[in-house]
Amino acid sequence: MLARRLIERKRDGGRIEPGEWRALASAYATGHVPDYQMSALLMACFLRGMDRIETAALTEAMLMSGDRLDLSGIAKPRVDKHSTGGVGDKVSLVLAPLIASLGVAVPMMSGRSLGHTGGTLDKLESIPGFRTKLTLAEATEQIQRIGCALIGQSPEIAPADRRMYSLRDATATVESIPLIASSIMSKKLAEDLSGLVLDLKRGSGAFLPELDRVLELAEVMIKLGKDHGCPCVALVTAMDRPLGRACGNALEVEEAIAALKGEGPPDLMSVTYALGAEMLVLAGAAPDLDHARREMEKSIGTGRAAECFQKIIEAQGGNPGVVDDPAVLPQAAECEIFTARRRGFIARVEPKAVGRAIVEMGGGRSRVEDVVDPAVGFVITARPGDWVEEGEPLATVFAHDRAGVGIGRQALRAAIFIADEAEPPLPLVSHRVTISGVELYETD
Amino acid sequence: MLARRLIERKRDGGRIEPGEWRALASAYATGHVPDYQMSALLMACFLRGMDRIETAALTEAMLMSGDRLDLSGIAKPRVDKHSTGGVGDKVSLVLAPLIASLGVAVPMMSGRSLGHTGGTLDKLESIPGFRTKLTLAEATEQIQRIGCALIGQSPEIAPADRRMYSLRDATATVESIPLIASSIMSKKLAEDLSGLVLDLKRGSGAFLPELDRVLELAEVMIKLGKDHGCPCVALVTAMDRPLGRACGNALEVEEAIAALKGEGPPDLMSVTYALGAEMLVLAGAAPDLDHARREMEKSIGTGRAAECFQKIIEAQGGNPGVVDDPAVLPQAAECEIFTARRRGFIARVEPKAVGRAIVEMGGGRSRVEDVVDPAVGFVITARPGDWVEEGEPLATVFAHDRAGVGIGRQALRAAIFIADEAEPPLPLVSHRVTISGVELYETD
Repeated sequence: MLARRLIERKRDGGRIEPGEWRALASAYATGHVPDYQMSALLMACFLRGMDRIETAALTEAMLMSGDRLDLSGIAKPRVDKHSTGGVGDKVSLVLAPLIASLGVAVPMMSGRSLGHTGGTLDKLESIPGFRTKLTLAEATEQIQRIGCALIGQSPEIAPADRRMYSLRDATATVESIPLIASSIMSKKLAEDLSGLVLDLKRGSGAFLPELDRVLELAEVMIKLGKDHGCPCVALVTAMDRPLGRACGNALEVEEAIAALKGEGPPDLMSVTYALGAEMLVLAGAAPDLDHARREMEKSIGTGRAAECFQKIIEAQGGNPGVVDDPAVLPQAAECEIFTARRRGFIARVEPKAVGRAIVEMGGGRSRVEDVVDPAVGFVITARPGDWVEEGEPLATVFAHDRAGVGIGRQALRAAIFIADEAEPPLPLVSHRVTISGVELYETD
Repeated sequence: MLARRLIERKRDGGRIEPGEWRALASAYATGHVPDYQMSALLMACFLRGMDRIETAALTEAMLMSGDRLDLSGIAKPRVDKHSTGGVGDKVSLVLAPLIASLGVAVPMMSGRSLGHTGGTLDKLESIPGFRTKLTLAEATEQIQRIGCALIGQSPEIAPADRRMYSLRDATATVESIPLIASSIMSKKLAEDLSGLVLDLKRGSGAFLPELDRVLELAEVMIKLGKDHGCPCVALVTAMDRPLGRACGNALEVEEAIAALKGEGPPDLMSVTYALGAEMLVLAGAAPDLDHARREMEKSIGTGRAAECFQKIIEAQGGNPGVVDDPAVLPQAAECEIFTARRRGFIARVEPKAVGRAIVEMGGGRSRVEDVVDPAVGFVITARPGDWVEEGEPLATVFAHDRAGVGIGRQALRAAIFIADEAEPPLPLVSHRVTISGVELYETD
């Protein structure tokens, strides 16, 4: 009867109190509140909104519904990065070993692909043998030993959020700022961090396309972090086109490895360095962002970053040979070059169309239980603003079979717009948000 | 994926098209759409509203999700009455045999108690042996033979509505005009009626307390009936106090039998006659409301109405002796007279407080699966407007044990207000709504 009463109150625009959120999350995590009541409540929260006190209470309630990592035995500072997700976003794969190689612990808990966005876990699992399911004890030991673990949300961490997350996807209650903020933060706060960097995407391929909503989300999350003694910095980055060139699980791993060796595409490197610098400064491992950046460049230049990735892969059962030879990754049976049908400027490369095509080609999920084909995807070399001639190669489609190639070709036709004039794309990193407020990001 | 897309559209204030409602209702009835998606959609419908086209489409979709009665073999006109529910509302028990005794078929499908309101099925089942679960074939045969069957919603009738109805109760999505209207009408239109009379309650004990919302509901339902060739008339009746004196299953059966013998309390008789007259005129069995009323009084006076009830009880396996001797009904172990604590006017008798006390005493349901104790309840003789002296009996509490008596006594203290001045109660029947519009009801 409790759940019904709370749904009714939220439906009518009232507030659910902290103790009630706690009782609800715990009852939900243990199966005493059914999904059908939770989904009605989520829709009421979506449409009626939640104030800051409620958002904090829900975050706390989901955090308390499970265990946390205990990294108190680790002397190093511990930082993580969270991205709201996009297409071609393989930053985590580069950033985690890069930051760990500089003496900072990275206890990174990631998610799977869902909808048009990719998931770090699926990318990692394209490396033969790679295990993303570690126990909390295994993860702790590995972080102690090599400074980083790349794992999925274990069943012990925020189980109420875990159950709620897939429910939200099925019930169209994802795009709510308080629900997004509390879901992310309940997991991240369970990582026992000394700091957290948020990569908040905006643009047509982001969950929240509009800047004002992204800034609102940043503010809510940073406040939640502060309340839990976890300082956060958020960068607003562009998701009006895919990040980097590779889109698709194994293809992105290959590009991430290239990036760790100093051969990453410029946009991927810019975003990675911007986020990494914030992580290093938050961790106290660099005095300022410029120093931090130079340290990262050095780690990549000397090969330490790539070596760290190799260690992580080895520790988690994957084939470490992938770092030297990406050909150990699953390879697509079919590929085809996609060329420009006319001359002009690349006006847009729509990330959603690309991401959805990957799902359709078998490389993503439309349901949680779908199995992912790691080899399929795209390498898109055309960037918004480029001038291209008719017949010039813009991308390569990688598919399981000819039908998949057809889907991919069709998708690129819809995704890549060529026009007589260039449209200015969003700045790669546009805003920096801290507890003190929002500032425009200064690019070099 | 269909359900998710429709939820999203409704969430954002869009409209679900008739074909989509049909697909959804059929998928839901067969278990292909889970409850958690339906409850999110219901909450979105609740908060965003549904226009007339959508309401009609949902009604049609739920109707089409199952079978209908086929009464084409019955030469008589067929009418039914539906009430939005209240406390002490035993009108169906009186009306069905009364109208059937006048040569009109009454294929009455009723519901169970839920929340603070009683349910006709539970009342009937307090008669030893009475079966409310008939197959559609059995019901048809019985209507043919004796003019009336009093049954529950069979699993074949509007299964989508059946599943949705209990879901709505658990998810606080009951009090929505389009959802109420489509739920009621999808069931009633499956009864193959030549006319339907609606008893729409208003006041503090009604699901929709406010007159304007009740009139809106009336308008929506009457329009739905017209679209399906089923003329409807609605009366707005008072539920700011219990109807009649008895509240509780067996107690109400006893009062209904008294009413069929001409010994019913005046308010119960007024509402019964008002609704019955509309049924008879709709059925073409009386030229006008006055004639209809006299016919009903005659049927009660001659004993034909009571005799018809006896036949129905016998046909459905119940002990027909109950009509002559109500003592065959389950009797409460404990009873106690409740008296006035001060002198003054009876200002109010709150139906919700009374209804909730019955649930707490075991005579109703807080969950669908609860078992009902038929014997418990109240007989409340005090009426709003009465002058009472201190110590004067106002009611009798009937309970299973002394603890139940305590609950009942406490509830009556909260429910019955005595004040220095009388508050005018709502008129018993205040408005009459037809397809042509709303008129004030003329009382005699």
